Amino acid sequence: MSLQRKLRYAVLGIGRMGSRHAQNIAYRTPRAELVSICDPRPTSLTWAEKHLPSDIRVYQDSKTLFNEGGDEIDAVLIASETGSHASLAIEAMRAGKHVLLEKPISIDLETSRTVVEETKKFPDLKVMVGFSRRFDESYRSVKEMIDQGKLGEPHLIKSATNDQHDPSGFFVSYASASGGIFIDCGIHDIDLARWYLSPQGIKQVKRVFALGHNIQHPELAKYDDVDNGVGVVEFENGKILVVHVNRTMNHGHDCFTEVFGKEGKVVVNGNPQLNRVEIRDTHGVRTESTPTYYERFREAFVNEVNEFTDVVLDNKPLPVSCEDALEATKIATALTHSFKSGQPVYFSSDGQPILV
Amino acid sequence: MSLQRKLRYAVLGIGRMGSRHAQNIAYRTPRAELVSICDPRPTSLTWAEKHLPSDIRVYQDSKTLFNEGGDEIDAVLIASETGSHASLAIEAMRAGKHVLLEKPISIDLETSRTVVEETKKFPDLKVMVGFSRRFDESYRSVKEMIDQGKLGEPHLIKSATNDQHDPSGFFVSYASASGGIFIDCGIHDIDLARWYLSPQGIKQVKRVFALGHNIQHPELAKYDDVDNGVGVVEFENGKILVVHVNRTMNHGHDCFTEVFGKEGKVVVNGNPQLNRVEIRDTHGVRTESTPTYYERFREAFVNEVNEFTDVVLDNKPLPVSCEDALEATKIATALTHSFKSGQPVYFSSDGQPILV
Amino acid sequence: MSLQRKLRYAVLGIGRMGSRHAQNIAYRTPRAELVSICDPRPTSLTWAEKHLPSDIRVYQDSKTLFNEGGDEIDAVLIASETGSHASLAIEAMRAGKHVLLEKPISIDLETSRTVVEETKKFPDLKVMVGFSRRFDESYRSVKEMIDQGKLGEPHLIKSATNDQHDPSGFFVSYASASGGIFIDCGIHDIDLARWYLSPQGIKQVKRVFALGHNIQHPELAKYDDVDNGVGVVEFENGKILVVHVNRTMNHGHDCFTEVFGKEGKVVVNGNPQLNRVEIRDTHGVRTESTPTYYERFREAFVNEVNEFTDVVLDNKPLPVSCEDALEATKIATALTHSFKSGQPVYFSSDGQPILV
Amino acid sequence: MSLQRKLRYAVLGIGRMGSRHAQNIAYRTPRAELVSICDPRPTSLTWAEKHLPSDIRVYQDSKTLFNEGGDEIDAVLIASETGSHASLAIEAMRAGKHVLLEKPISIDLETSRTVVEETKKFPDLKVMVGFSRRFDESYRSVKEMIDQGKLGEPHLIKSATNDQHDPSGFFVSYASASGGIFIDCGIHDIDLARWYLSPQGIKQVKRVFALGHNIQHPELAKYDDVDNGVGVVEFENGKILVVHVNRTMNHGHDCFTEVFGKEGKVVVNGNPQLNRVEIRDTHGVRTESTPTYYERFREAFVNEVNEFTDVVLDNKPLPVSCEDALEATKIATALTHSFKSGQPVYFSSDGQPILV
Repeated sequence: MSLQRKLRYAVLGIGRMGSRHAQNIAYRTPRAELVSICDPRPTSLTWAEKHLPSDIRVYQDSKTLFNEGGDEIDAVLIASETGSHASLAIEAMRAGKHVLLEKPISIDLETSRTVVEETKKFPDLKVMVGFSRRFDESYRSVKEMIDQGKLGEPHLIKSATNDQHDPSGFFVSYASASGGIFIDCGIHDIDLARWYLSPQGIKQVKRVFALGHNIQHPELAKYDDVDNGVGVVEFENGKILVVHVNRTMNHGHDCFTEVFGKEGKVVVNGNPQLNRVEIRDTHGVRTESTPTYYERFREAFVNEVNEFTDVVLDNKPLPVSCEDALEATKIATALTHSFKSGQPVYFSSDGQPILV
Repeated sequence: MSLQRKLRYAVLGIGRMGSRHAQNIAYRTPRAELVSICDPRPTSLTWAEKHLPSDIRVYQDSKTLFNEGGDEIDAVLIASETGSHASLAIEAMRAGKHVLLEKPISIDLETSRTVVEETKKFPDLKVMVGFSRRFDESYRSVKEMIDQGKLGEPHLIKSATNDQHDPSGFFVSYASASGGIFIDCGIHDIDLARWYLSPQGIKQVKRVFALGHNIQHPELAKYDDVDNGVGVVEFENGKILVVHVNRTMNHGHDCFTEVFGKEGKVVVNGNPQLNRVEIRDTHGVRTESTPTYYERFREAFVNEVNEFTDVVLDNKPLPVSCEDALEATKIATALTHSFKSGQPVYFSSDGQPILV
Repeated sequence: MSLQRKLRYAVLGIGRMGSRHAQNIAYRTPRAELVSICDPRPTSLTWAEKHLPSDIRVYQDSKTLFNEGGDEIDAVLIASETGSHASLAIEAMRAGKHVLLEKPISIDLETSRTVVEETKKFPDLKVMVGFSRRFDESYRSVKEMIDQGKLGEPHLIKSATNDQHDPSGFFVSYASASGGIFIDCGIHDIDLARWYLSPQGIKQVKRVFALGHNIQHPELAKYDDVDNGVGVVEFENGKILVVHVNRTMNHGHDCFTEVFGKEGKVVVNGNPQLNRVEIRDTHGVRTESTPTYYERFREAFVNEVNEFTDVVLDNKPLPVSCEDALEATKIATALTHSFKSGQPVYFSSDGQPILV
Repeated sequence: MSLQRKLRYAVLGIGRMGSRHAQNIAYRTPRAELVSICDPRPTSLTWAEKHLPSDIRVYQDSKTLFNEGGDEIDAVLIASETGSHASLAIEAMRAGKHVLLEKPISIDLETSRTVVEETKKFPDLKVMVGFSRRFDESYRSVKEMIDQGKLGEPHLIKSATNDQHDPSGFFVSYASASGGIFIDCGIHDIDLARWYLSPQGIKQVKRVFALGHNIQHPELAKYDDVDNGVGVVEFENGKILVVHVNRTMNHGHDCFTEVFGKEGKVVVNGNPQLNRVEIRDTHGVRTESTPTYYERFREAFVNEVNEFTDVVLDNKPLPVSCEDALEATKIATALTHSFKSGQPVYFSSDGQPILV
């Protein structure tokens, strides 16, 4: 490992997550260097002036970035709105850049597939979808336990991604673009289940079933979406995922996973505590929760960039591939379809959900 | 309340649970009195001689009990093997005795229904199925919170009844008589969900879906049973139960319930700790678990007898009726059918599972 | 063990604890029988009529009890006000009765010694001071771990008895009779430390040091008492107790013990939770605490009577002797003296605190 | 705040902590820049070549650093062995550099005082002792709660710094240079108590008392040191600290603090868990502990440099002064003296421990 050579990044999209990624690359990742950013919004650029190094280049559209500033960068981190993920990823690959892409590739299965196909044309480029849990210290230590056989063969995962209720209903406004709760929230649990349960081959899933209801946001009904969804996934290897996604918690962001192995069970984040402080007063014995996923996964986002940087600089295999992202999207899509149709969704022998 | 009058009990079946019930009635329940027991097994009688008061009467069959000792008792507690629950309950009612019956009434839906029909002929008799969680201090305090509106409207329950793995595979031997894991273990979670979620009317359930697999006991397959089962129940009121039953835990008996309300969530038994001791040594920071359901629900069994005794002596309404038990059995039966058929099971407009 | 023979009890003092003891003996202890009670207060007798069996005898003074009802009882449980413990215990012994005595024997060291001397005259009588923690399931399991060597040699105990703040300041009114906080609350932690750390011989303690302050009850100053006290005890065997007693908690009764052994540490009651329910709402992730010591030790009080009953009926050795109580009183007295004098208190070679 | 200007650091001492500090400054602190390091040990320099940026300057003695490389740096971080802290700090101040100093200034009270006196000659320089807990997210949130009055007035702190037992007995070898356990480990708890309890003025402490024993390392006796020490500190404002330091835990590094306020109590690090993973297997329900203080305070060390950098660049007041470090040293010295003498140590009216 040479500390001399750094991977030069452009961050595309300086919104909520993009701004955090840009700061991480600028200040917290030894082998990564922030060279440029790209965002059309004036507020993003004002923010960048205050919080990012003064010598970075700023672009307002990706075309100019790749044309004029392409030589200065090795990689892009794409953190723009979901709808532009796929086209930007393809544009970057065609410009010869490695790609670290925020999940999901797309809410649309076909579009996701197109990106995966494109990656095959660029075998020298590294393209990774940033499933943050794969880079979280706790989830990783569980993966190590599984690989070391400490839990015996894992057979069942129960996982919940439960977001804090936002009385402003902000997320309802982008419900039409989110792909629905199983894609927007559940994809993390699905990817986690695939990581731990290791389904193999062309056909990885036997069938899925999902249902849900609206507790705080009845207006979601018009988008055919819910604020609480429950799904079960039966993999072809007989293993099972039970996933519960919601946006209605009162105490904070609570993502909670149970992994059942033949020799032991692990619980990740049984108490979503913000820190190591416990209060004992008239409300009882209590801890404060992480308010959002960001406080929960802050370090994971730094690890993600560090690891992707190592992958590129040291030409190592990707820890999570675009195929992984595609498989997760298939399952999330199948769950969404099952929720809407009220029926189980089966997978065909070539591994596609049969969306009848 | 008069402490003078005591309810005189016979306990039928002095096995694992019957012996505990008999001791509770003899020694720990102020208004209940143990008058007689009935069990054909010599070992049970030997045990009784040592552990029960010397002045109780002992019978080897129920017919003799009711014929010869009937006048001395007001009530029976039936804790015999499941297969005899229904006929003994009917026999007791016809003998004019109040009945406290271990769950389930029967693993067979039709037989369960017969008992419920019989109770209607004896409106003066109290007949209760002992769902132990209804008498557990923790579950009761959650019910109070719900009734007081402290959680907002409850909409989703995730509940697990996970038994400790028994390497001897003892329970496999009675798999054929147990009705399968959804009936044997899941009925508690189902009853709990009905208690908390309050489905009403003739048709309480919209549909159920279940799946499962064998981790420690592949030999269960020949009974069409599994050692891990997952089910989802959608009630007619839109509320949902997710239930996970297994017999494969390594650490102990772990029954774990999450109740999601609009204003808050509660977790019951997040850590199945045996007592208030935590150990910190080379294995980490740890607590020991309750080995079986009995350590978990010891006090609930006492409360159950106390409360049933009050119901009879003070002519109070039953906290849980035979109709409740029948509804739970319907749902457990539907889950079992769904597991076997691989399809969702719907309920008809008259509230019956459509077992196609 | 014969279940036929029962130990016949009179309970002296039907106040807060006496009424609970009387009910336990009447209804929850198989080999113990409540025969009579003794209390001069009309309210106590009214309570007894409602809550105790109708056939017990009621006395208003101990003299009459022993004279008229003495033949009917084998043992007494003394739960009267602390000031009368010693004289009643002596009266009972002289009447030939076994004695189960609420702690402490007396707040006065000399008086305590007198009772211990008296017991020596009645070697056939069992006289036990009811230190409830010795009969608590959790504390007992720690004792077993120590005895089995699972923690290695225990060397340090940090223990806290922290009572819920009572804004009414009720306990201030009996501060003059309580002996001060180190005797009133600390004696449990002291007895526990002696039980676990096993000091032996005539001189068990090297020295003690104590300090304290008033947080909620400045009016205690006039009794030379505090609502928060901290003490350290160095035993002659080199082992150490750190004790913290207070009456100022906002969340409930919190008695918390850490035992440090060479091979491991245990924590008892790290979270003073009332039950197995955890709430997650806008106040965070929280549990409710036991409000008083009674909810914490409810079962221990039953065990205590059961065990003392076995000791008498089966002529077994006492689990905790009057000498134990005397030693604990010595230490509590020394801590009280150290707090008042501001100096360490040393123990003489004959094991007495040097109260200069 | 300008991101353009960076504070240029030299790190003195590239040992266990120095190497971590150097990496933090090089890679994780936006406004700080690593310019040079100084360490005479070849192994340290070899390590630096691999892990630090290639363009930093390397010195083997501080004199050369300040003579030749002095113009290139604004500040030094001193992480050398404790015995050289004081002289290096003075050397740095005289060279006009800001100083961030690992605790303690010195194990010798007089030497510590000399450094504090020296700082007064350089009012334009910022000199801070890095008490890591002051920069830990959890401890800081407690400080905020105190300042906001959420706990009411804090009156008592019970704090433990318990290190994992090292069977190699490594630390025994530097026992002669460590100043003893109350200085080496206890100074963190003492500083914390002063931070939270806010003693004011010349005389801050009334008296202290300490005792201890050796459990794993009897050979410490020859250094007049122990592997378990207990101390109590009574502040002049009536508030109390109880501190327990040891090096004998089996499960990991366990630093545990309880803060008692009039309106509530907080517990920091009640479970010293390494991460968010809980394991349930034949050893029970368990979490793994942080093995050393470093895993516990990793982020605090980054915060510490960031904050000190801001203090210098933005000319802000120091969050913790050298006077604070001196006061903590006085108390630790008094506890050490009390432990050795067996007597309480009082403080004089000019705030000095009376070490008779």
